[in-house]
Amino acid sequence: MRDFLPADVRKREYVIGVIKSVYESYGFEPLETPAVENLETLTGKYGEEGNQLIFKILKRGEKLRESSDSELADLALRYDLTVPLARVVANNRNDIPKFFKRYQIQPVWRADRPAKGRFREFYQCDVDAIGSTSMVIEAEVIVTASEILTRLGFGDFAVRLNHRQLLSQMVADAGIAEETDALIALDKLDKIGADGVKKDLLSRGIDSAAADQFLAAVTGEVSHPDLDRLLDLCGSPRVKIDPSLARGLSYYTGTIMEINVPDLAGSLGGGGRYDGLIGMFGKEQIPACGFSLGLERILVVMDERGMFPPEIADSGAADVLVTIWSEETAAESLKLAQELRSAGLRVTLYPDADKLGKQIKYADSIKVPFVCVLGESEIADGTVTIKNMKTGDQQTLIRRAAPGCIQNP
Amino acid sequence: MRDFLPADVRKREYVIGVIKSVYESYGFEPLETPAVENLETLTGKYGEEGNQLIFKILKRGEKLRESSDSELADLALRYDLTVPLARVVANNRNDIPKFFKRYQIQPVWRADRPAKGRFREFYQCDVDAIGSTSMVIEAEVIVTASEILTRLGFGDFAVRLNHRQLLSQMVADAGIAEETDALIALDKLDKIGADGVKKDLLSRGIDSAAADQFLAAVTGEVSHPDLDRLLDLCGSPRVKIDPSLARGLSYYTGTIMEINVPDLAGSLGGGGRYDGLIGMFGKEQIPACGFSLGLERILVVMDERGMFPPEIADSGAADVLVTIWSEETAAESLKLAQELRSAGLRVTLYPDADKLGKQIKYADSIKVPFVCVLGESEIADGTVTIKNMKTGDQQTLIRRAAPGCIQNP
Repeated sequence: MRDFLPADVRKREYVIGVIKSVYESYGFEPLETPAVENLETLTGKYGEEGNQLIFKILKRGEKLRESSDSELADLALRYDLTVPLARVVANNRNDIPKFFKRYQIQPVWRADRPAKGRFREFYQCDVDAIGSTSMVIEAEVIVTASEILTRLGFGDFAVRLNHRQLLSQMVADAGIAEETDALIALDKLDKIGADGVKKDLLSRGIDSAAADQFLAAVTGEVSHPDLDRLLDLCGSPRVKIDPSLARGLSYYTGTIMEINVPDLAGSLGGGGRYDGLIGMFGKEQIPACGFSLGLERILVVMDERGMFPPEIADSGAADVLVTIWSEETAAESLKLAQELRSAGLRVTLYPDADKLGKQIKYADSIKVPFVCVLGESEIADGTVTIKNMKTGDQQTLIRRAAPGCIQNP
Repeated sequence: MRDFLPADVRKREYVIGVIKSVYESYGFEPLETPAVENLETLTGKYGEEGNQLIFKILKRGEKLRESSDSELADLALRYDLTVPLARVVANNRNDIPKFFKRYQIQPVWRADRPAKGRFREFYQCDVDAIGSTSMVIEAEVIVTASEILTRLGFGDFAVRLNHRQLLSQMVADAGIAEETDALIALDKLDKIGADGVKKDLLSRGIDSAAADQFLAAVTGEVSHPDLDRLLDLCGSPRVKIDPSLARGLSYYTGTIMEINVPDLAGSLGGGGRYDGLIGMFGKEQIPACGFSLGLERILVVMDERGMFPPEIADSGAADVLVTIWSEETAAESLKLAQELRSAGLRVTLYPDADKLGKQIKYADSIKVPFVCVLGESEIADGTVTIKNMKTGDQQTLIRRAAPGCIQNP
């Protein structure tokens, strides 16, 4: 897990800000759930591998002598944002709208082996629409995610679509009985290629002719009425059907979607329709569909490509630093700092009455573009001396002119 | 732990937005640390009671036969934001400025018994300044917190100050040897009154005359050079010395501060100087001082007093809902929604081709102020019908005039 120093946080907040603003412009509303869920809420939702990756929290205030995890732990850290949403919807059916369009941007935790670009704490940025089976929902989440990537400056992403039914059909048509095995193997296509997937299928006891037929189907041309309608609704050349797309999560029941860019193994985000999950938490079966953008991967690509606007990438700690001349004049420096803040500037105050050179050197180290020197003569004259740290120029002017001089140098 | 539905999140985000913007205007920079820390980082920092309240995370992938917490758990959830900051500063001394002014707004977790206004997951909003012993730091964190409360609309808060040295001096002057006991008892003054504190002191074996002398001192007039200078620097009638102020956390070494309002037992926030904590994580002893605002308590008081601006308190899910006439015209409705979004509106699309009355009823239920009806005749004519949900008025106008009609009704 990582600490984020100020420069990192600024980049993260910039991307989150764009995501939020686009989600809201599409009528999605914010939801937040606790980091900690009951252990039983999470177990059995993510497949066997997922179960192993859940961080479990030790029971409190009891003598602990039991020897199995489930007796020792009763709570666990959030593993994704979809299962908590399903729990919230099932528990609050009367407090949320018939169609609930929500977004949620929060960290999740997986007890995975840390690796390049893979973290044990990472943010997901999810949109989901609850309560409708209409393909308009799929179209809207795809258009929403596409607009976010476009606004962030991605010009080369592709949206791939598949359908759970289509996958099942292709597995059955090839005469393969082990659907889950076949899809787990297929999910590795990007990483290990068709030959690798074939080997994997054979190792699972699927015969060679069936494997060939299945691979031919998933790499060929297909058509599906729902996906054809979705292509129509999206009306974008970026969106394409890819019958080889198989996503890990077991709860998808209809459309499956993923967004990729050429220079990243893995996806920037993915989603799909899961009409069966909410029913696991309540009496009512409620249809749902959503999309999750991976913040960490978006940041990795944006960093590598240098996509951050300069005001984010090069932001200093403040717009101006105010110096302190002496213990006696510190209150006057505090006052000047307040005046500059009232004008909308971010102002940091040097805390000690150190030598002026030391104060200016510090201002340089935190990339502050202007320094306001308030010495005894300036206080006596009602003036301030402003040093432009980029050009080295400095000028003394009446105090009320200081904000303007910094804002329009 | 709580779920926050959209109306809650909007209020939380509003308050967090004000806090962030004021923190940044004072030159504080954002920091984020992981939810999970090594268990040993947290233990021994918060006193014995604090140790009991730490959520511990079960070790992963091992046969578990041990019987003590420390053998079963290796990680734990963040208990406050100060100890993680101290760890970050000690570990990143070369990557952070000599004076590091950081803010951090993140949840913390305490395995406390839930009670009214007390939660097991709650947000802290901290500012801290690292690297200086100057009282200018104390003045700046007090002025920062005060400006936040003022901007949020609090007109009646009071800032109380005390000093660790002054407390020790009053304990010693009263002839009390048990300083920690005396301060734990004093910390309850607001809740149980002077008589209650006296009883508590007696029960800890402190004799009656000493207890009386101590109580007289903490409720009398005092003076302390650091605090007098701080009053000068703040220059605000809201800031007062209160020798009875004793805060729970054991790591404070100098100034202690707290902000209160009359209608809330407990504080809206507090802080102080802790010049010894960072040295516990590294070789170097680095001075530090900070202040933490309690988001949940600020929200409770603002809710009770009705302090939220109407655009936050009454915000609907979107500015306008676009209807769908039929399956065939859905793509056209998607297009209209995009046109309205391009004009800066938050637009939600009804997902199904239900009866118009049903679509309008839904718009009402999610408090959307305008509905754009796009029927077959509107599509044929290049128009749209806009219904004002407040007045009930509706008018049909050419499509490109729609955003203006909604923005300036």
